[in-house]
Amino acid sequence: MARGKFITFEGGEGAGKSTQAQLLAERLKARDIQVVLTREPGGSAFAEQVRELILGSNTADHGPLAEALLFSAARADHLERTIRPALEAGQWVICDRFADSTRVYQGVAGGLPKAIIEALERIVVDDTVPDLTIVLDLPATDGLARARGRGNNNSRANAGGPSDNYEDRPLSFHERLRDGFLMIATAEPERCVVVDALQSQEEVAAQVWNTVEIRLLQQQQQSD
Amino acid sequence: MARGKFITFEGGEGAGKSTQAQLLAERLKARDIQVVLTREPGGSAFAEQVRELILGSNTADHGPLAEALLFSAARADHLERTIRPALEAGQWVICDRFADSTRVYQGVAGGLPKAIIEALERIVVDDTVPDLTIVLDLPATDGLARARGRGNNNSRANAGGPSDNYEDRPLSFHERLRDGFLMIATAEPERCVVVDALQSQEEVAAQVWNTVEIRLLQQQQQSD
Repeated sequence: MARGKFITFEGGEGAGKSTQAQLLAERLKARDIQVVLTREPGGSAFAEQVRELILGSNTADHGPLAEALLFSAARADHLERTIRPALEAGQWVICDRFADSTRVYQGVAGGLPKAIIEALERIVVDDTVPDLTIVLDLPATDGLARARGRGNNNSRANAGGPSDNYEDRPLSFHERLRDGFLMIATAEPERCVVVDALQSQEEVAAQVWNTVEIRLLQQQQQSD
Repeated sequence: MARGKFITFEGGEGAGKSTQAQLLAERLKARDIQVVLTREPGGSAFAEQVRELILGSNTADHGPLAEALLFSAARADHLERTIRPALEAGQWVICDRFADSTRVYQGVAGGLPKAIIEALERIVVDDTVPDLTIVLDLPATDGLARARGRGNNNSRANAGGPSDNYEDRPLSFHERLRDGFLMIATAEPERCVVVDALQSQEEVAAQVWNTVEIRLLQQQQQSD
Protein backbone atom coordinates (compact mmCIF):
# COMPACT_ATOMS: atom_id res chain seq x y z
CA MET A 1 0.00 0.00 0.00
CA ALA A 2 1.27 3.47 -0.90
CA ARG A 3 2.13 5.71 2.00
CA GLY A 4 -0.40 8.52 2.49
CA LYS A 5 0.46 12.16 1.94
CA PHE A 6 1.24 14.53 4.79
CA ILE A 7 0.00 18.10 4.38
CA THR A 8 0.49 20.88 6.92
CA PHE A 9 -1.03 24.35 7.16
CA GLU A 10 1.10 27.10 8.63
CA GLY A 11 0.89 30.84 9.19
CA GLY A 12 0.35 33.51 11.80
CA GLU A 13 -2.74 34.41 13.77
CA GLY A 14 -6.00 34.75 11.88
CA ALA A 15 -4.69 33.29 8.62
CA GLY A 16 -7.53 30.76 8.35
CA LYS A 17 -5.49 27.59 8.82
CA SER A 18 -8.07 25.47 10.61
CA THR A 19 -10.83 26.46 8.20
CA GLN A 20 -8.72 25.66 5.16
CA ALA A 21 -7.49 22.40 6.68
CA GLN A 22 -11.08 21.33 7.15
CA LEU A 23 -12.15 22.38 3.65
CA LEU A 24 -9.27 20.45 2.14
CA ALA A 25 -10.10 17.36 4.21
CA GLU A 26 -13.69 17.43 2.96
CA ARG A 27 -12.61 17.80 -0.63
CA LEU A 28 -10.20 14.89 -0.38
CA LYS A 29 -12.81 12.70 1.26
CA ALA A 30 -15.14 13.49 -1.64
CA ARG A 31 -12.43 11.94 -3.83
CA ASP A 32 -12.56 8.79 -1.69
CA ILE A 33 -9.26 9.49 -0.02
CA GLN A 34 -9.10 8.53 3.64
CA VAL A 35 -8.11 11.60 5.62
CA VAL A 36 -6.99 12.20 9.19
CA LEU A 37 -7.52 15.85 10.11
CA THR A 38 -5.44 16.80 13.12
CA ARG A 39 -3.77 19.76 14.80
CA GLU A 40 -0.89 20.82 16.98
CA PRO A 41 -0.34 20.98 19.80
CA GLY A 42 -2.45 17.90 20.34
CA GLY A 43 -3.65 15.11 18.10
CA SER A 44 -3.07 12.20 20.52
CA ALA A 45 -4.16 11.57 24.10
CA PHE A 46 -0.82 12.50 25.67
CA ALA A 47 -0.25 15.42 23.31
CA GLU A 48 -3.66 16.81 24.23
CA GLN A 49 -2.62 16.69 27.89
CA VAL A 50 0.54 18.58 27.02
CA ARG A 51 -1.63 21.01 25.07
CA GLU A 52 -3.61 21.73 28.22
CA LEU A 53 -0.39 22.61 30.00
CA ILE A 54 0.80 24.76 27.10
CA LEU A 55 -2.46 26.64 26.74
CA GLY A 56 -3.40 26.73 30.42
CA SER A 57 -4.11 30.18 31.73
CA ASN A 58 -2.05 29.52 34.87
CA THR A 59 1.04 28.20 33.12
CA ALA A 60 4.16 29.67 34.73
CA ASP A 61 6.55 31.83 32.74
CA HIS A 62 9.16 29.90 30.79
CA GLY A 63 11.63 30.57 28.03
CA PRO A 64 11.57 29.56 24.36
CA LEU A 65 13.80 26.50 24.92
CA ALA A 66 11.49 24.98 27.55
CA GLU A 67 8.57 25.81 25.31
CA ALA A 68 10.08 24.26 22.20
CA LEU A 69 10.82 21.11 24.21
CA LEU A 70 7.27 20.96 25.48
CA PHE A 71 5.88 21.29 21.96
CA SER A 72 8.37 18.66 20.86
CA ALA A 73 7.15 16.23 23.53
CA ALA A 74 3.61 16.65 22.26
CA ARG A 75 4.78 16.35 18.64
CA ALA A 76 6.75 13.16 19.30
CA ASP A 77 3.65 11.46 20.65
CA HIS A 78 1.42 12.89 17.93
CA LEU A 79 3.78 11.53 15.29
CA GLU A 80 4.13 8.14 16.95
CA ARG A 81 0.48 7.52 17.71
CA THR A 82 -1.44 9.41 15.04
CA ILE A 83 0.53 10.72 12.07
CA ARG A 84 2.93 7.88 11.23
CA PRO A 85 0.41 5.04 11.69
CA ALA A 86 -2.08 6.88 9.44
CA LEU A 87 0.49 7.53 6.71
CA GLU A 88 1.66 3.94 6.84
CA ALA A 89 -1.95 2.80 6.49
CA GLY A 90 -2.20 4.85 3.30
CA GLN A 91 -4.31 7.62 4.83
CA TRP A 92 -3.62 11.27 4.16
CA VAL A 93 -2.86 13.44 7.16
CA ILE A 94 -3.77 17.11 7.24
CA CYS A 95 -2.32 18.96 10.20
CA ASP A 96 -3.17 22.45 11.41
CA ARG A 97 0.33 23.67 12.38
CA PHE A 98 3.42 21.51 12.67
CA ALA A 99 7.18 21.90 13.04
CA ASP A 100 7.40 25.15 11.04
CA SER A 101 5.45 26.84 13.83
CA THR A 102 8.17 25.89 16.30
CA ARG A 103 10.82 27.18 13.90
CA VAL A 104 9.01 30.49 13.67
CA TYR A 105 7.40 31.09 17.07
CA GLN A 106 10.28 29.87 19.27
CA GLY A 107 13.03 30.30 16.70
CA VAL A 108 12.68 33.34 14.43
CA ALA A 109 10.36 35.32 16.72
CA GLY A 110 11.32 33.76 20.08
CA GLY A 111 15.07 33.96 19.62
CA LEU A 112 15.96 30.28 20.08
CA PRO A 113 19.08 29.56 17.97
CA LYS A 114 18.46 27.87 14.65
CA ALA A 115 20.90 25.07 15.48
CA ILE A 116 18.78 24.06 18.48
CA ILE A 117 15.56 24.15 16.50
CA GLU A 118 17.16 22.02 13.80
CA ALA A 119 18.57 19.50 16.26
CA LEU A 120 15.16 19.11 17.92
CA GLU A 121 13.49 18.69 14.57
CA ARG A 122 15.92 15.94 13.60
CA ILE A 123 15.17 14.14 16.86
CA VAL A 124 11.40 14.50 16.72
CA VAL A 125 10.28 14.82 13.11
CA ASP A 126 13.08 12.72 11.66
CA ASP A 127 11.97 11.68 8.18
CA THR A 128 8.28 12.47 8.64
CA VAL A 129 8.64 15.74 6.77
CA PRO A 130 5.41 17.05 5.23
CA ASP A 131 4.93 16.36 1.53
CA LEU A 132 3.27 19.73 1.20
CA THR A 133 3.10 22.77 3.47
CA ILE A 134 0.60 25.49 2.71
CA VAL A 135 1.71 28.82 4.18
CA LEU A 136 -1.30 31.08 4.52
CA ASP A 137 0.16 34.55 4.29
CA LEU A 138 -1.28 37.91 5.15
CA PRO A 139 -0.05 41.13 6.77
CA ALA A 140 0.20 40.88 10.55
CA THR A 141 -2.28 43.72 11.07
CA ASP A 142 -4.92 41.94 8.98
CA GLY A 143 -4.38 38.60 10.68
CA LEU A 144 -4.59 40.15 14.12
CA ALA A 145 -7.76 42.04 13.24
CA ARG A 146 -9.36 38.78 12.10
CA ALA A 147 -8.16 36.84 15.13
CA ARG A 148 -9.45 39.50 17.49
CA GLY A 149 -12.69 39.66 15.59
CA ARG A 150 -13.43 35.98 16.11
CA GLY A 151 -12.78 36.22 19.83
CA ASN A 152 -10.28 34.14 21.71
CA ASN A 153 -11.86 30.73 21.21
CA ASN A 154 -9.31 29.67 18.72
CA SER A 155 -6.54 32.12 19.27
CA ARG A 156 -4.23 29.91 21.25
CA ALA A 157 -4.48 26.78 19.21
CA ASN A 158 -0.92 27.12 18.10
CA ALA A 159 1.73 24.51 17.66
CA GLY A 160 4.51 26.93 18.26
CA GLY A 161 2.95 29.48 20.44
CA PRO A 162 3.89 30.54 23.90
CA SER A 163 1.40 30.12 26.66
CA ASP A 164 0.43 33.72 26.91
CA ASN A 165 -2.03 35.24 24.57
CA TYR A 166 -0.34 36.09 21.32
CA GLU A 167 -2.69 38.65 20.24
CA ASP A 168 -1.43 40.84 23.05
CA ARG A 169 2.09 40.64 21.72
CA PRO A 170 3.47 43.66 19.89
CA LEU A 171 2.93 43.97 16.17
CA SER A 172 6.67 43.55 15.62
CA PHE A 173 6.41 39.97 17.00
CA HIS A 174 3.68 39.14 14.51
CA GLU A 175 5.65 40.70 11.69
CA ARG A 176 8.59 38.46 12.58
CA LEU A 177 6.24 35.48 12.47
CA ARG A 178 5.17 36.40 8.96
CA ASP A 179 8.77 36.91 7.85
CA GLY A 180 9.71 33.58 9.42
CA PHE A 181 7.08 31.61 7.51
CA LEU A 182 7.97 33.35 4.24
CA MET A 183 11.67 32.59 4.79
CA ILE A 184 10.89 28.90 5.22
CA ALA A 185 8.78 28.88 2.06
CA THR A 186 11.58 30.56 0.13
CA ALA A 187 14.17 28.12 1.45
CA GLU A 188 12.07 25.02 0.75
CA PRO A 189 10.06 25.63 -2.41
CA GLU A 190 9.69 21.89 -3.13
CA ARG A 191 7.73 21.49 0.09
CA CYS A 192 6.07 24.88 0.62
CA VAL A 193 3.51 26.94 -1.25
CA VAL A 194 2.52 30.42 -0.14
CA VAL A 195 -1.13 31.30 -0.56
CA ASP A 196 -2.42 34.85 -0.23
CA ALA A 197 -4.75 34.63 2.75
CA LEU A 198 -6.25 38.05 2.11
CA GLN A 199 -8.34 36.45 -0.61
CA SER A 200 -11.83 35.15 0.16
CA GLN A 201 -12.15 31.77 1.86
CA GLU A 202 -13.36 30.28 -1.44
CA GLU A 203 -10.45 31.72 -3.40
CA VAL A 204 -7.94 30.42 -0.87
CA ALA A 205 -9.60 27.00 -0.88
CA ALA A 206 -9.51 26.88 -4.68
CA GLN A 207 -5.82 27.74 -4.73
CA VAL A 208 -5.07 25.15 -2.03
CA TRP A 209 -6.96 22.52 -3.99
CA ASN A 210 -5.20 23.43 -7.20
CA THR A 211 -1.86 23.03 -5.45
CA VAL A 212 -2.84 19.66 -3.99
CA GLU A 213 -4.00 18.46 -7.39
CA ILE A 214 -0.82 19.49 -9.17
CA ARG A 215 1.68 18.55 -6.50
CA LEU A 216 0.17 15.43 -4.98
CA LEU A 217 -2.78 13.95 -6.86
CA GLN A 218 -1.36 14.12 -10.37
CA GLN A 219 1.98 12.94 -9.10
CA GLN A 220 0.25 10.01 -7.44
CA GLN A 221 -1.68 9.13 -10.60
CA GLN A 222 1.55 9.13 -12.55
CA SER A 223 3.11 6.72 -10.12
CA ASP A 224 0.04 4.44 -10.06
CA MET B 1 32.87 35.68 42.83
CA ALA B 2 33.66 32.00 42.33
CA ARG B 3 30.97 29.95 40.65
CA GLY B 4 29.24 27.57 43.07
CA LYS B 5 29.55 23.81 42.82
CA PHE B 6 26.88 21.63 41.27
CA ILE B 7 26.32 18.24 42.90
CA THR B 8 23.77 15.66 41.77
CA PHE B 9 22.52 12.47 43.40
CA GLU B 10 21.54 9.61 41.15
CA GLY B 11 20.45 6.00 41.50
CA GLY B 12 17.47 3.68 41.28
CA GLU B 13 14.43 3.40 43.50
CA GLY B 14 14.97 3.33 47.25
CA ALA B 15 18.65 4.29 47.09
CA GLY B 16 18.25 7.14 49.58
CA LYS B 17 18.95 10.04 47.22
CA SER B 18 16.69 12.65 48.75
CA THR B 19 17.78 11.83 52.30
CA GLN B 20 21.46 12.05 51.39
CA ALA B 21 20.95 15.24 49.38
CA GLN B 22 19.37 16.82 52.42
CA LEU B 23 22.09 15.61 54.81
CA LEU B 24 24.78 16.99 52.53
CA ALA B 25 22.99 20.32 52.24
CA GLU B 26 22.86 20.64 56.02
CA ARG B 27 26.51 19.80 56.38
CA LEU B 28 27.54 22.35 53.77
CA LYS B 29 25.38 25.02 55.38
CA ALA B 30 27.14 24.30 58.67
CA ARG B 31 30.33 25.26 56.85
CA ASP B 32 28.74 28.59 55.88
CA ILE B 33 28.26 27.59 52.29
CA GLN B 34 25.09 28.85 50.69
CA VAL B 35 23.18 25.88 49.32
CA VAL B 36 20.20 25.47 47.04
CA LEU B 37 18.65 22.02 47.53
CA THR B 38 16.48 21.08 44.59
CA ARG B 39 15.10 18.09 42.71
CA GLU B 40 13.97 16.85 39.34
CA PRO B 41 11.54 16.87 37.81
CA GLY B 42 10.71 20.26 39.28
CA GLY B 43 12.72 22.97 40.95
CA SER B 44 11.10 25.97 39.25
CA ALA B 45 7.49 27.08 38.87
CA PHE B 46 7.09 25.86 35.30
CA ALA B 47 9.08 22.67 35.91
CA GLU B 48 6.82 21.86 38.87
CA GLN B 49 3.83 22.17 36.54
CA VAL B 50 5.50 19.79 34.10
CA ARG B 51 6.18 17.50 37.06
CA GLU B 52 2.47 17.37 37.80
CA LEU B 53 1.85 16.23 34.24
CA ILE B 54 4.67 13.67 34.41
CA LEU B 55 3.57 12.23 37.74
CA GLY B 56 -0.16 12.63 37.26
CA SER B 57 -2.10 9.44 37.75
CA ASN B 58 -4.17 10.10 34.63
CA THR B 59 -1.28 10.81 32.30
CA ALA B 60 -1.86 9.09 28.95
CA ASP B 61 0.53 6.45 27.67
CA HIS B 62 3.52 7.82 25.79
CA GLY B 63 6.86 6.56 24.59
CA PRO B 64 10.36 7.23 25.91
CA LEU B 65 11.06 9.99 23.37
CA ALA B 66 8.02 12.03 24.37
CA GLU B 67 8.92 11.41 27.99
CA ALA B 68 12.55 12.44 27.59
CA LEU B 69 11.40 15.64 25.86
CA LEU B 70 8.97 16.39 28.67
CA PHE B 71 11.70 15.93 31.29
CA SER B 72 13.96 18.08 29.15
CA ALA B 73 11.39 20.88 29.05
CA ALA B 74 11.26 20.85 32.84
CA ARG B 75 15.05 20.64 33.05
CA ALA B 76 15.59 23.57 30.69
CA ASP B 77 13.45 25.79 32.91
CA HIS B 78 14.99 24.44 36.10
CA LEU B 79 18.46 25.22 34.77
CA GLU B 80 17.51 28.66 33.51
CA ARG B 81 15.60 29.86 36.56
CA THR B 82 17.13 28.01 39.49
CA ILE B 83 20.40 26.17 38.88
CA ARG B 84 22.41 28.56 36.70
CA PRO B 85 21.48 31.73 38.61
CA ALA B 86 22.43 30.06 41.91
CA LEU B 87 25.77 28.80 40.59
CA GLU B 88 26.56 32.20 39.13
CA ALA B 89 25.78 33.80 42.50
CA GLY B 90 28.35 31.50 44.10
CA GLN B 91 25.80 29.20 45.73
CA TRP B 92 26.17 25.45 45.68
CA VAL B 93 23.37 23.49 44.08
CA ILE B 94 22.46 19.99 45.24
CA CYS B 95 20.00 18.25 42.98
CA ASP B 96 18.08 15.04 43.66
CA ARG B 97 18.27 13.44 40.19
CA PHE B 98 19.39 15.17 37.00
CA ALA B 99 20.33 14.32 33.43
CA ASP B 100 21.79 10.90 34.26
CA SER B 101 18.30 9.76 35.20
CA THR B 102 17.12 10.56 31.68
CA ARG B 103 20.09 8.70 30.23
CA VAL B 104 19.21 5.66 32.30
CA TYR B 105 15.41 5.60 32.61
CA GLN B 106 14.57 6.61 29.02
CA GLY B 107 17.87 5.58 27.45
CA VAL B 108 19.42 2.42 28.89
CA ALA B 109 16.22 1.00 30.38
CA GLY B 110 13.66 2.74 28.12
CA GLY B 111 15.38 1.97 24.84
CA LEU B 112 15.79 5.51 23.48
CA PRO B 113 18.93 5.59 21.32
CA LYS B 114 22.01 7.05 22.95
CA ALA B 115 22.50 9.55 20.13
CA ILE B 116 19.12 11.11 20.88
CA ILE B 117 19.79 11.28 24.61
CA GLU B 118 23.16 12.91 23.93
CA ALA B 119 21.72 15.42 21.48
CA LEU B 120 19.03 16.42 23.97
CA GLU B 121 21.59 16.77 26.72
CA ARG B 122 23.72 19.06 24.57
CA ILE B 123 20.69 21.23 23.90
CA VAL B 124 19.43 21.38 27.47
CA VAL B 125 22.34 20.89 29.87
CA ASP B 126 24.96 22.44 27.61
CA ASP B 127 27.93 23.29 29.83
CA THR B 128 26.08 23.06 33.15
CA VAL B 129 27.48 19.61 33.80
CA PRO B 130 27.59 18.62 37.48
CA ASP B 131 30.93 19.03 39.22
CA LEU B 132 30.19 15.88 41.19
CA THR B 133 27.62 13.13 40.80
CA ILE B 134 27.05 10.70 43.64
CA VAL B 135 25.65 7.41 42.39
CA LEU B 136 23.94 5.61 45.25
CA ASP B 137 24.21 1.98 44.32
CA LEU B 138 22.43 -1.06 45.65
CA PRO B 139 20.95 -4.24 44.21
CA ALA B 140 17.58 -3.68 42.58
CA THR B 141 15.83 -6.09 44.94
CA ASP B 142 17.06 -4.16 47.99
CA GLY B 143 16.13 -0.80 46.55
CA LEU B 144 12.67 -1.98 45.60
CA ALA B 145 12.10 -3.48 49.05
CA ARG B 146 13.03 -0.15 50.63
CA ALA B 147 10.93 1.87 48.22
CA ARG B 148 7.94 -0.37 48.79
CA GLY B 149 8.52 -0.22 52.51
CA ARG B 150 8.29 3.54 52.64
CA GLY B 151 5.04 3.58 50.68
CA ASN B 152 4.47 5.48 47.51
CA ASN B 153 4.86 9.00 48.85
CA ASN B 154 8.20 9.48 47.31
CA SER B 155 8.32 6.72 44.81
CA ARG B 156 7.62 8.74 41.73
CA ALA B 157 9.84 11.70 42.39
CA ASN B 158 12.08 10.78 39.54
CA ALA B 159 13.77 12.96 36.99
CA GLY B 160 13.88 10.24 34.45
CA GLY B 161 10.98 8.09 35.34
CA PRO B 162 7.97 7.26 33.30
CA SER B 163 4.58 8.28 34.54
CA ASP B 164 3.52 4.88 35.70
CA ASN B 165 4.59 3.50 38.98
CA TYR B 166 8.06 2.13 38.66
CA GLU B 167 7.89 -0.18 41.49
CA ASP B 168 5.45 -2.26 39.50
CA ARG B 169 7.94 -2.68 36.69
CA PRO B 170 9.72 -5.99 36.37
CA LEU B 171 12.92 -6.57 38.27
CA SER B 172 14.81 -6.72 34.98
CA PHE B 173 13.93 -3.05 34.36
CA HIS B 174 15.37 -2.08 37.74
CA GLU B 175 18.47 -4.14 37.08
CA ARG B 176 18.98 -2.25 33.84
CA LEU B 177 18.67 1.00 35.77
CA ARG B 178 21.40 -0.09 38.14
CA ASP B 179 23.64 -1.17 35.28
CA GLY B 180 22.98 2.11 33.52
CA PHE B 181 24.08 4.24 36.47
CA LEU B 182 27.17 2.11 37.00
CA MET B 183 28.08 2.40 33.31
CA ILE B 184 27.91 6.19 33.53
CA ALA B 185 30.10 6.20 36.64
CA THR B 186 32.64 3.98 34.91
CA ALA B 187 32.67 6.15 31.80
CA GLU B 188 33.01 9.44 33.71
CA PRO B 189 35.13 8.83 36.79
CA GLU B 190 36.16 12.49 37.06
CA ARG B 191 32.55 13.44 37.65
CA CYS B 192 31.02 10.38 39.30
CA VAL B 193 31.55 8.52 42.55
CA VAL B 194 29.70 5.32 43.37
CA VAL B 195 28.68 4.91 47.00
CA ASP B 196 27.41 1.62 48.39
CA ALA B 197 23.88 2.44 49.45
CA LEU B 198 23.47 -0.79 51.40
CA GLN B 199 25.45 0.82 54.19
CA SER B 200 23.69 2.66 57.00
CA GLN B 201 22.46 6.18 56.36
CA GLU B 202 25.30 7.52 58.53
CA GLU B 203 27.94 5.51 56.71
CA VAL B 204 26.66 6.68 53.33
CA ALA B 205 26.55 10.30 54.55
CA ALA B 206 30.11 10.04 55.85
CA GLN B 207 31.35 8.69 52.55
CA VAL B 208 29.48 11.38 50.62
CA TRP B 209 30.98 14.05 52.84
CA ASN B 210 34.45 12.63 52.49
CA THR B 211 34.06 12.72 48.71
CA VAL B 212 32.84 16.31 48.76
CA GLU B 213 35.75 17.34 50.97
CA ILE B 214 38.36 15.71 48.77
CA ARG B 215 36.90 16.54 45.39
CA LEU B 216 35.40 19.96 45.93
CA LEU B 217 36.29 21.66 49.21
CA GLN B 218 40.04 20.97 49.22
CA GLN B 219 40.22 21.79 45.53
CA GLN B 220 38.46 25.07 46.23
CA GLN B 221 40.82 25.91 49.10
CA GLN B 222 43.75 25.26 46.82
CA SER B 223 42.41 27.66 44.26
CA ASP B 224 41.56 30.35 46.86
